[in-house]
Amino acid sequence: MKRKAFFISDGTGITAETLGHSLLSQFESIEFEQVTLPYIDTNEKAEEVVRKLNNVVKTTGASPIIFDTIVNQNIRDIISKADGFKVDIFSTFLSPLEKELNIHSSYTVGKSHAGGDNEIYKARIDAVNYALDNDDGSKVKHFDQADVILVGVSRSGKTPTCLYMALQFGIKAANYPLTEEDLGSLMLPEVLKPYKSKLFGLTIDPERLSAIRNERKSNSRYASLNQCYYETEEVEFLYRQENISFLSTTDLSIEEISTRIMLDADLQRLT
Amino acid sequence: MKRKAFFISDGTGITAETLGHSLLSQFESIEFEQVTLPYIDTNEKAEEVVRKLNNVVKTTGASPIIFDTIVNQNIRDIISKADGFKVDIFSTFLSPLEKELNIHSSYTVGKSHAGGDNEIYKARIDAVNYALDNDDGSKVKHFDQADVILVGVSRSGKTPTCLYMALQFGIKAANYPLTEEDLGSLMLPEVLKPYKSKLFGLTIDPERLSAIRNERKSNSRYASLNQCYYETEEVEFLYRQENISFLSTTDLSIEEISTRIMLDADLQRLT
Repeated sequence: MKRKAFFISDGTGITAETLGHSLLSQFESIEFEQVTLPYIDTNEKAEEVVRKLNNVVKTTGASPIIFDTIVNQNIRDIISKADGFKVDIFSTFLSPLEKELNIHSSYTVGKSHAGGDNEIYKARIDAVNYALDNDDGSKVKHFDQADVILVGVSRSGKTPTCLYMALQFGIKAANYPLTEEDLGSLMLPEVLKPYKSKLFGLTIDPERLSAIRNERKSNSRYASLNQCYYETEEVEFLYRQENISFLSTTDLSIEEISTRIMLDADLQRLT
Repeated sequence: MKRKAFFISDGTGITAETLGHSLLSQFESIEFEQVTLPYIDTNEKAEEVVRKLNNVVKTTGASPIIFDTIVNQNIRDIISKADGFKVDIFSTFLSPLEKELNIHSSYTVGKSHAGGDNEIYKARIDAVNYALDNDDGSKVKHFDQADVILVGVSRSGKTPTCLYMALQFGIKAANYPLTEEDLGSLMLPEVLKPYKSKLFGLTIDPERLSAIRNERKSNSRYASLNQCYYETEEVEFLYRQENISFLSTTDLSIEEISTRIMLDADLQRLT
């Protein structure tokens, strides 16, 4: 029987979910069933959550683990009556912070992801549009405006990484696929040469690459192990020759790839 | 002088950053300079961080606020010597959780965003590819595979929302722009009719829409206030007539829009 965990918030629940997921992932031998309950922002919804939580003990025999970032005091009071092991994120940290900062917190819902900050919102949307306009093989190549240009062989993870950096950090990330032709000549394509300082390379384990490509075009030359070995060897040779920073995406999540690129290329995130 | 805050981790720093940002945003009257320091995973890097932190008091006269999710004990010991107000996220919550779960945590770096879970990774990448293939005006329309299909007038936020849902939640979100023609007839386009139960509508304040469109095509009929009033009125009429759930994106962040759609359309996130 999986242990049940809940992430409860009167906002999006993203903070509770991120922290809760991080903490629970430290207990590898336990399987958790994780449920996010966002926008619990009325007494009625809170009462329903309490019923749901109280039911967990009855049906599973174990208390639910409850991570919450509820701000509204009425809602907090209602949820606090539920059976469960509570990790009260805000109350744990806000009062020491209030003391340190010598000021009361505003205790307002949804500050963290609020759309109110138009500048940041606009920058993120602009970055997403930029990533889409300057994606793999697209005609537009506004590389002068790029914060970073990802290069790599087809299916090494360029596009999702660009989109994540745009959405999460407001970074304008273009990408350019290095084709067999580029690799054959072992030269950077002309269009990239003026922007060498912005380039960041991705590579990937050839066996993994072959598996990924086989899902798109099975039994093709493109997906063959031979071809994948050839392309990744050549591309890594090219990175070294041209002195381009690169990393292997094989065992990394999109978050990890993005964060490592940000660090390596010294890119500043929006705050 | 802005108060300095640091998010420090031996992993991506995303958890420290998310929680720290959430907590600090509760103190609206204080301006924070927020710095994320990811991959602090050697003694040397940790010593450098300590120097950086100790320098803050000297140069600004105020202690830095430090949020950390460092797992490695050596690194923790080094960072703990720094001057600053520390919010030690893991040690605060892990030991009570260990007691509740009656097990020691593995205390392993980077579990939360680890790429190791291939199933989830693949689902997210598939969802991103799906969103890109089924975006605004693209020829492919695999709506049968969609978890949700966002509809709305041009520039109401469909594409970034689809991409966020794909990256964050592994949701396959297609989108379809409702054009003037669709709105004139006040009918759902034929291509959408079989998928009515998957539709979710976006709308937006016409003045905001006009401002956004003016940035793309200034002084066009497309961006005119008249046109934006017309389109948003018609689209909202259509949603009501066809009984399609919808929300206004005007004051919401991408996170908020996505989370509300997930909730409303009863979509399950990956865990």
